[in-house]
This record gives sequence, structure tokens and C-alpha cells, in this order.
Amino acid sequence: MKTTVSKRMTFCAGHRLYNPEWSEEKNQSVFGPCSNPNGHGHNYVLEVQVTGPVDAATGMIINLKSMKQVIQQEIIDKLDHQNLNSDVDFLKGVIPTTENLAAVIWEILDSKFGGEMLSRIILWESENNHVEICR
Amino acid sequence: MKTTVSKRMTFCAGHRLYNPEWSEEKNQSVFGPCSNPNGHGHNYVLEVQVTGPVDAATGMIINLKSMKQVIQQEIIDKLDHQNLNSDVDFLKGVIPTTENLAAVIWEILDSKFGGEMLSRIILWESENNHVEICR
Amino acid sequence: MKTTVSKRMTFCAGHRLYNPEWSEEKNQSVFGPCSNPNGHGHNYVLEVQVTGPVDAATGMIINLKSMKQVIQQEIIDKLDHQNLNSDVDFLKGVIPTTENLAAVIWEILDSKFGGEMLSRIILWESENNHVEICR
Amino acid sequence: MKTTVSKRMTFCAGHRLYNPEWSEEKNQSVFGPCSNPNGHGHNYVLEVQVTGPVDAATGMIINLKSMKQVIQQEIIDKLDHQNLNSDVDFLKGVIPTTENLAAVIWEILDSKFGGEMLSRIILWESENNHVEICR
Amino acid sequence: MKTTVSKRMTFCAGHRLYNPEWSEEKNQSVFGPCSNPNGHGHNYVLEVQVTGPVDAATGMIINLKSMKQVIQQEIIDKLDHQNLNSDVDFLKGVIPTTENLAAVIWEILDSKFGGEMLSRIILWESENNHVEICR
Amino acid sequence: MKTTVSKRMTFCAGHRLYNPEWSEEKNQSVFGPCSNPNGHGHNYVLEVQVTGPVDAATGMIINLKSMKQVIQQEIIDKLDHQNLNSDVDFLKGVIPTTENLAAVIWEILDSKFGGEMLSRIILWESENNHVEICR
Repeated sequence: MKTTVSKRMTFCAGHRLYNPEWSEEKNQSVFGPCSNPNGHGHNYVLEVQVTGPVDAATGMIINLKSMKQVIQQEIIDKLDHQNLNSDVDFLKGVIPTTENLAAVIWEILDSKFGGEMLSRIILWESENNHVEICR
Repeated sequence: MKTTVSKRMTFCAGHRLYNPEWSEEKNQSVFGPCSNPNGHGHNYVLEVQVTGPVDAATGMIINLKSMKQVIQQEIIDKLDHQNLNSDVDFLKGVIPTTENLAAVIWEILDSKFGGEMLSRIILWESENNHVEICR
Repeated sequence: MKTTVSKRMTFCAGHRLYNPEWSEEKNQSVFGPCSNPNGHGHNYVLEVQVTGPVDAATGMIINLKSMKQVIQQEIIDKLDHQNLNSDVDFLKGVIPTTENLAAVIWEILDSKFGGEMLSRIILWESENNHVEICR
Repeated sequence: MKTTVSKRMTFCAGHRLYNPEWSEEKNQSVFGPCSNPNGHGHNYVLEVQVTGPVDAATGMIINLKSMKQVIQQEIIDKLDHQNLNSDVDFLKGVIPTTENLAAVIWEILDSKFGGEMLSRIILWESENNHVEICR
Repeated sequence: MKTTVSKRMTFCAGHRLYNPEWSEEKNQSVFGPCSNPNGHGHNYVLEVQVTGPVDAATGMIINLKSMKQVIQQEIIDKLDHQNLNSDVDFLKGVIPTTENLAAVIWEILDSKFGGEMLSRIILWESENNHVEICR
Repeated sequence: MKTTVSKRMTFCAGHRLYNPEWSEEKNQSVFGPCSNPNGHGHNYVLEVQVTGPVDAATGMIINLKSMKQVIQQEIIDKLDHQNLNSDVDFLKGVIPTTENLAAVIWEILDSKFGGEMLSRIILWESENNHVEICR
């Protein structure tokens, strides 16, 4: 039996899908309107799941308050109301697809939570599309 | 008794709130992170409501298929995956707040539906913020 | 100032949009796939709103328990898991569009609640389409 | 044409519906399990709507940041994680039904926003029940 | 670490749960109102998940546009606005429970996506009931 | 391939997070406002998942009607409109965190469904926080 606690948070950001090694035509054919030159954006929803033993004294896997603080400082404060192509240090050179964005978020949170506590993240780009990463 | 039919559609777009007649500082103090220089974006949800008599032969106020087509052609195709500051003819010179964006959408749809059929539009910028215009 | 209490309930039903005075072709051209011969169906969501003075002793406009009971008995029990074209007495001869279905529900509930207490009903046929009737 | 801006916020609280002037039996018969002696609670959702002219310089009816701040300070900070029967000054002696709670919230926000800007509040006690107050 | 991309789509359909080898009574006792003779229907929500390596050049596991196209052509176009008991080739002889419907959808999509890319499908029959199939 | 059926149900309850072996100060520092002396409450959402073979005659893993009945009798009827600190036999001495509440619900449902049919439960305390238990 595994027990997992999950926190949902949101941010909005701008982005454009564009591979600089490709022609404009190839970018349009692969990424479609996501490649429009002046960019667009989304309300992202991020769910972070941590799995582990429940502490007998607190009845918690992890204090949701500190879990929220980590996600706020490490992810939301860095991404919210930013342009993912130009404004975020840890996204430099990354094509900001949901897959790539989720991979970078995973890496940061995994190192912060440590001990393989991070078990899954889910990142929604819209109500119809999302990406999950899990161990 | 009034009967109203409502259609919900979605689009995503990028924007930046910025008044060119103000200093950078004033923009930041009024618009906060919505004024960040490289822009951000949202998944917008648009609900369009039409009020009128129900046709006895069809049992409809308006055919939802043609209602959807009008909204698609006049609004969604023009806004989806666009940058609201630079890419949209009918938003030139407009600060793309939700209020202003809704006002422009209202004007377009009101002229297309005619006869004061359009009774309300609701435009969500996020799950927590929306603007409504009604007669 | 007006105070309104609202109850949301759900039912599922089958239907087909079809005007028997029209040819098959005209039905297809007006109703599209909603006119497919063997019918389809929906999960309907019904929201019922009652407006009135708040009773000082109970702090309520109307007891939600009895409000729910009326909607359950008069509407949900008659429509849930039924075919709207053939199984429901009060829909005989009615083309079961959302507008017509809402009109019949309004009439029934208005007579049950009485005194112009019923102020609005909202009937969703899907997450993207709904009909409202209000005074 | 009227333009309205709406902010959605949440809080959780405990309560018990109980009229001290009635017997235990009468309370149970009117309020049912909502009257259970040790109380229960809800995740409340509050939507606040303000209607008015759109400022030409800002493109806003009211700055959502300050609108949120007012709701946070005046309502959420006072109600969140509190017991509505015992912990809240402005609810002393009030049976905390959704109607009564909404009425008190309306009164506070109406005096804070002033000028009849407040046009509607909607208070959900659960996904199926809500109360609205509007002018 | 596994990365998964997910697409949500919707369709509506009619159905009746009925085992022709059983008496009417047995059908009613097992399936209840789902077995009513003239059928009913639902708004189905289908989520399709594909797991695999992220392509370095595109930043994608699979292009969501083509993923959506496959689901649209193979599933939605065949099921939307249809009667699941009579109108769908690949459901002939199948009792259209959510489990059976999901199994048939899995089989079709698994053969289309190939290479064990399909990792999970989730099929909601209503907001309260769903079926999942995963490897 | 595994097939899973899932049922979503709701209840509301009051609670207070408090470890009686700790000082008031330590309780406040660990649990924050969740430890406020007079308690608060939530609308809980419970999703129960059962995994197993699909019966060829019924097309079901388990009859949702009986699955719902078990959850109603064993969990919802015991928790709905109750105070989790004082009113529920099987929570005596348990700090009612979402983790602990989920663990107790798991234990009860696992023994009722038997045969390792129960594969996962998900318990939401709010739209942003939930706990999952799975095998």
C-alpha cells in the first residue's frame, strides 16, 4: 500500500513552440498555430504528488504548508506571468512544450524534495491536454 | 418569461497589460506582473448567450450549429493562439484587459446576431476571474 | 436586493430531434446528427433557482430538503434513464430540444412552487451548451 | 449595456444550523443532519461581482488586485478555518445558513465597495447548493 | 521516469444495458433503469494517454494534433450522436457497459498507436462514474 | 491490461487537527489554522476504484449499484454531517488529517470488497489538496 499526497497550484505564462534549427515552414508544419511568431499563452495547472510513510505524530506524509511553499518558490514564482521562451533561467534553450516544461519542473522538485519522495507531477496546458511524469 | 441559449467556447492567447502613455513604473504599479515586458497568456473561456422566442417548428431560439459558426469565425479564429497586443486587427490600440476584450467581442457579436438577440457574454481569463457584459 | 437559493441536480436521458411534419432530409439539414434515427443521449444538469424573503426563524428562503424533493419527484424521477421522445407523458408531441425541455420543466416547477417563487432554471445538455429560463 | 467583473475566492469553515429558541426535536426536524450537535463544515466558494463603467486609462472597472484584497481582509481572513457559530464577531446570533451568511457578506462588501458598485455575490456551500444576492 | 501525454475528448451517445439471453426481469434486476426498453444516453468523456520517449527535436512524445486526429476518426466519429446498441459496427453483440465500451476503444486505439505507446484510457459515463484501462 | 471501475461520492464533515500530546503552541506551529480550537470543516470528495476481471454476462467488474451501496453504508452514512474528532467510532483517537482519514476508509472498504479488488481510493479535502492510497 502506498499513500500519496497531492497539491494543485496554477500559473499563467506565455510561450511559442519554435525550433531555431528549422525553417519557419517546418516550424509551422510541426507546431501549427503554437508556432505563431508573437506567441500566445495558457493558464497552466500543476499537480505535485509526494509518496511516503505517514508520520504517526502529525498524521501527514509531508506538511502541505511547506510542500506548497517549495512549489511556490521554486516553480510558481519563477513561471507565473512570464514568457517561457525568454524570461526563465532554467528554460533557456528549451522548446517550451508541456513535456519539456514538465521535465524541468520534475528535475527541480525532485532535487528539492529528495529521497525519491516526488512520485508524480501532472501539468495541464488546457482542460483537454496534459502531461504526467512519474517514477 | 425569457428563454436564453448559451454556447461555451475556448481560445488561448498571449497579452500584456500596458498603457503606452504611462511610465514603466506606473504600468508596473497599476498592472503588476500583468505588465511584464515579454507578455504572458491565458486559456480564455467565452460564453455567449442569445435570448429570444423559441421557434415552434424547430424548438430552438437559434440553431446552435450556426451560432457556434458565427462565434468560431468572428471571434475564435481571430483570437486563438494570437498575441492580443499585436496580432488582432480589431484590438489595435486597445489595452487587452478582460473588460476591453469583452467589450470588443460584444460589439462584433451584437452586430452579427442583430436584433438585440445577444443578451450576455461572459469571458473568463482564469478559473477565478471573469467579466460579463449584458444588456 | 433579491436573495435566491439554487439547487443543482442531474439526470441522463435519450432523445432524438425530429419534426414529424418534415422530410428526413429537412430534419437532417436542420438538426444534423441530433436527428440520427436511433437516437443518442446526454447527462443533463438542471439548476433550479427560487427567489424570495428569508424566513427569520429558519434563515432560509425555502428548505433545500423539500425543494430537492419537489425537483426529484416532479422532474428527475420522470426523466432519468428515460427516452424523451417516447417515455415521458408531459413530453408527448414535444420536440425534445433543450429549449422545449426547459420550458416544460419550468411550467411544472412553477406550478409546484407557486407564488412566482421560481425565478430561474438552467438546463445543461453538455458542458458547452445550456438553456436558461427566467422571469 | 452593463459590464461586470467577478472574482472567485474560497474558504472553509465549520457550522451547525440551530435555532436556540426551538427544542432539539424541532431543530432536527427543520435542519436535519445540519443540526447535529458537534457541527460539520464546508468548503465555501464565494464569487463577488462589481458593476460599473470601465476606466479608459486602465481598461478596468476596478483593479482586481485591490478587489481581491478587500475580499481577503474583510471576509476570507475572518471566516477561513473558523467555526461560524462561535468564532466570528459579525455572525454572533446569526443562524449560519447560506442565506444568512451571504446576507452578512453582502452588507460588509457593499459598505466597503460603496456607490452601489457591488452588484451580485454568489456563495456555494457545496457543488450542488448556492445562494445569490443581487440588487 | 515515465512521461505521458493525455488528450481529453467528448462524445454523446445513446445506449441500453440488456443481455438478450436473460429475461426482462433478470435484466431489470441486474441493470436497473439502465435496462429501460427505449434506452437513454450520456455525455461521455474519453481521456487517452500515450507514454514514451520525448523527441529531442520537437519536445513531444507524439504530436497532439495527430493524436487528436486518430481519436477523432477512429472513435469519436464512429460513436458521437449514435446509438451504441444498434449503430456501431465494432459494438455489434456487445453489451454497452462502460467497461465493454472502454475495452473496444482500447483495442482500436492500441492497434492504431502501436508499439505499446497507449498506456491508459479513462472513460467517464457521468461525473461520478468512470472506467480506466491501463497496461 | 487492467480494468478499473471508479465511483465518486461526496460528504461534508467538521474536524480539527490536534495532537493531544502536544502543547497548544506546537499544535498551532504544525497544523496552523487547521488547529483552531472550535474546528472547521470541508466538503470531501471520495473516489473509490475497484480493479478486476469483467464478467462476460454483465459486462461489469462489479455492479456500480452495489458498489455505491457499500460506500454509502460503510463510509458516507458514518461521516456525512459529522464531526470527525468526536462523532465517528472508527476515528476515535485518530488525528483526522486527510492521510489518516483515507487510511481508515481504505481499511474498511478493503475488508468489505475483499479479494484485493480495491485498487485505489482518492480523497479530496479541497479542490487543491488530495490524498491517494493504492496497492
